[in-house]
Amino acid sequence: MKFCSQCGAEVESKVPEGDNRERFVCPSCDVIHYQNPHIVAGCVAQWEGKILLCSRAIEPRHGFWTVPAGFMENGETVAQGAARETWEEALAKVTTTSVLAIVDVVHAKQVHIFYRGTMDTADYGAGIESLETRLVDEADIPWDDIAFPSVTYAMRRYLEDRAAGVENVHETEIRWRRPKSDDT
Amino acid sequence: MKFCSQCGAEVESKVPEGDNRERFVCPSCDVIHYQNPHIVAGCVAQWEGKILLCSRAIEPRHGFWTVPAGFMENGETVAQGAARETWEEALAKVTTTSVLAIVDVVHAKQVHIFYRGTMDTADYGAGIESLETRLVDEADIPWDDIAFPSVTYAMRRYLEDRAAGVENVHETEIRWRRPKSDDT
Repeated sequence: MKFCSQCGAEVESKVPEGDNRERFVCPSCDVIHYQNPHIVAGCVAQWEGKILLCSRAIEPRHGFWTVPAGFMENGETVAQGAARETWEEALAKVTTTSVLAIVDVVHAKQVHIFYRGTMDTADYGAGIESLETRLVDEADIPWDDIAFPSVTYAMRRYLEDRAAGVENVHETEIRWRRPKSDDT
Repeated sequence: MKFCSQCGAEVESKVPEGDNRERFVCPSCDVIHYQNPHIVAGCVAQWEGKILLCSRAIEPRHGFWTVPAGFMENGETVAQGAARETWEEALAKVTTTSVLAIVDVVHAKQVHIFYRGTMDTADYGAGIESLETRLVDEADIPWDDIAFPSVTYAMRRYLEDRAAGVENVHETEIRWRRPKSDDT
């Protein structure tokens, strides 16, 4: 941030009075421009036991696989964001059923919140941000080619819970940018 | 938003190519300024079964009661944010133990995430954003004077779970700005 979004003046970086960390502050109109983490809403969606996966048509991680996920928008709930992303990326209508995982991705200034979901119909396809969409059996999940560690984490917990017949809410902090095949 | 925070030019509101909703876009440097919901991290903290409550020294809802909660900062996890707010508002060191509630507050463009916590010691006090801090028995919680409905929701679910001997994760969407004494 270089300029004040309210008045256009050049901002300064300083600790405002009564605060304890540096913010961008406008010396002209005195607005403090707070910067905070963003929520990424995602969905592990299933149809007849298979998981809905998309191959990314965009950077970062072009060509790698992910569950539908993206930045939550103003005016929606987290669950609505997860369902919207599933529609936009996988052209699938989904009903979210429970919170699956909350993943702090501190280095990226993001919190990833994943829901479990069930597709409303068998229909799916590739949205504009996807090269390809597939319904994949657990045995066929391409663990070495998953785009982000938070997605690996969410899918592993999903499958473990399903095998155990439970639906827990899982939390973790991801400290690595790259997924590892043994990232559990 | 009126001016581009990158170059200082006046922004326009329009739907960017490949997008489906209006954004603030800079006609000079082409940056798209996305605006997304903020996370509020809060903590229902207990000490010997009593709940830690603060009376707000700031607007909105000056003088009303709340559990420690505030905007999550970059560089921390949600749980760390909840603990930091407990320190700043109630001068209490707390260990967060589990996720209690995820509350979509769509009209405010916020998601409130509450943790359960246990104070590390019996010490507490009033931080600069609090008029007063108290440890309150369940029977003495001032339900009619709680600052925000998300706080009422989190405390009610906390107490119900405690009575039942469980620790579930609860979700809801709050559509009202004002708490109601029967808001459950």
